[in-house]
Amino acid sequence: MDLRAYLQEQREKVEKALALILPEPEGPAADVVKAMKYSLFAGGKRLRPILCIAGAEALGEDGSHVMPVACALEMIHTYSLIHDDLPAMDNDDMRRGKPTNHKVFGEAKAILAGDGLLTEAFRVMAQIPLGKIRPEALLRVICLVAQASGYQGMVGGQVTDIQSERKTVEPATVEFIHSHKTGALIAASVTSGAILGAASETQVDAINAYGRGIGLAFQISDDILDVEGDSEKMGKGVGGDARKKKVTYPSVHGLGTSKRIQEQTIDQAIHSLEAFDSKADPLRAIATYIIERKK
Amino acid sequence: MDLRAYLQEQREKVEKALALILPEPEGPAADVVKAMKYSLFAGGKRLRPILCIAGAEALGEDGSHVMPVACALEMIHTYSLIHDDLPAMDNDDMRRGKPTNHKVFGEAKAILAGDGLLTEAFRVMAQIPLGKIRPEALLRVICLVAQASGYQGMVGGQVTDIQSERKTVEPATVEFIHSHKTGALIAASVTSGAILGAASETQVDAINAYGRGIGLAFQISDDILDVEGDSEKMGKGVGGDARKKKVTYPSVHGLGTSKRIQEQTIDQAIHSLEAFDSKADPLRAIATYIIERKK
Repeated sequence: MDLRAYLQEQREKVEKALALILPEPEGPAADVVKAMKYSLFAGGKRLRPILCIAGAEALGEDGSHVMPVACALEMIHTYSLIHDDLPAMDNDDMRRGKPTNHKVFGEAKAILAGDGLLTEAFRVMAQIPLGKIRPEALLRVICLVAQASGYQGMVGGQVTDIQSERKTVEPATVEFIHSHKTGALIAASVTSGAILGAASETQVDAINAYGRGIGLAFQISDDILDVEGDSEKMGKGVGGDARKKKVTYPSVHGLGTSKRIQEQTIDQAIHSLEAFDSKADPLRAIATYIIERKK
Repeated sequence: MDLRAYLQEQREKVEKALALILPEPEGPAADVVKAMKYSLFAGGKRLRPILCIAGAEALGEDGSHVMPVACALEMIHTYSLIHDDLPAMDNDDMRRGKPTNHKVFGEAKAILAGDGLLTEAFRVMAQIPLGKIRPEALLRVICLVAQASGYQGMVGGQVTDIQSERKTVEPATVEFIHSHKTGALIAASVTSGAILGAASETQVDAINAYGRGIGLAFQISDDILDVEGDSEKMGKGVGGDARKKKVTYPSVHGLGTSKRIQEQTIDQAIHSLEAFDSKADPLRAIATYIIERKK
């Protein structure tokens, strides 16, 4: 399959759907909507929404049915970037080639823009037109996404990441950080699509195993790109992890072993999909792309 | 009815239910759970959960059925206090007689504790045991609560509040701030209870009008207490609004007119309940209590 064309097509659909969610900024609270939109349309890869769509498609479902959930996942991802970049957290000035949210709107509005995106994500999910989707399945997805985003997932990973800076940590800790900070929401993205596509429990487990694998591999590739990447392609400086003494796979395992772990993880992820037919080919191709990506 | 006994009894039930939601802090992310619990159990009035329960009871529903939603509302309220107190926002050191979250745990963990509580609130709602509750009603409640908390509600009110400090504003702006920052979530609390109690649309509208009224009146009484209150009873300093040149009802309308507006608002709120029988008496009593409260 032509993954490049698939990603391009899905990305365009996601952009269109995201553009319809937030109104034109007006009225007293216009500034926070402006700040929310600034980061939401700062040029992300839209990996999480595309995984949600591809997860539904693997079950033979039309991806358009899950689009509101796909958009909500991108809003949650964007909120996490805004808050992670704050001076009290990673204190980053640039993101995707643009000044970070708090650099443009100030800290207070950046915090509120993050809060606004996180909250709106749940509104968007809860308001999805049900159609063929069972309301119980949607409630399960909301629960799953919240769990993956909260203290048992992303928030838990971020706090551990911050606490581990400048420390020598066990390999288990870097795996905890990566699987929680990035892996949990990526796994929830593809699993949500499958659940809304009426997957059986066995299918949900398989898709979730795939999601956990590619989620971990994705974060390892982020670490590797911070060592080897091209800052122009990535839209942010490289070497930032080392400067901040961040816990990464290369810092704990070395570059060679990190790449080996990443390849094994991707192989296992693709293996998890063996019971699925060619409708899961986009998921298989995305797994390979994660190793090969340059930004 | 004995409102004091009613509030006491409901508060104890809410405390018990809240205590079961978050686990003992352990593992790598223990600190963020500790920070979440610190503020969640810092001695709030539990007004929003009690309103949710009383809203369900007004429809003849057992309050225990809506307890997870009641708890979620308190978690969202607590998150908003943690973020509002941050140095980049209101920069408050004390809250309910205790150091604010960031004073104890630092800014990064306070931001994450807020994020964690907001996210967990949606997990708790989505996972409510359905029993007699229709899943469609629960989805509507999640949507309503998210709308009341996000840029169309609390977040929108907070950004307007911050922007209006040290400025001369129209009465319409102070009403916008209060109805969004505080009123929206209070209205959503009681309305959620009614929706889960299978209210008709006419009943939902009436309860929502009541909620908007007491929500606005509650924030006006906060403003009045900041001028006239007893700092020992309130667990925080008084006069803070004037020092920060906050937009308040007394600063815009004067103290006398503010009290008159508050009384009219409460009268209208109670009037909204005229089609309800004695099962709505707790709601009526709470409306009166809001004017009389001293903390």
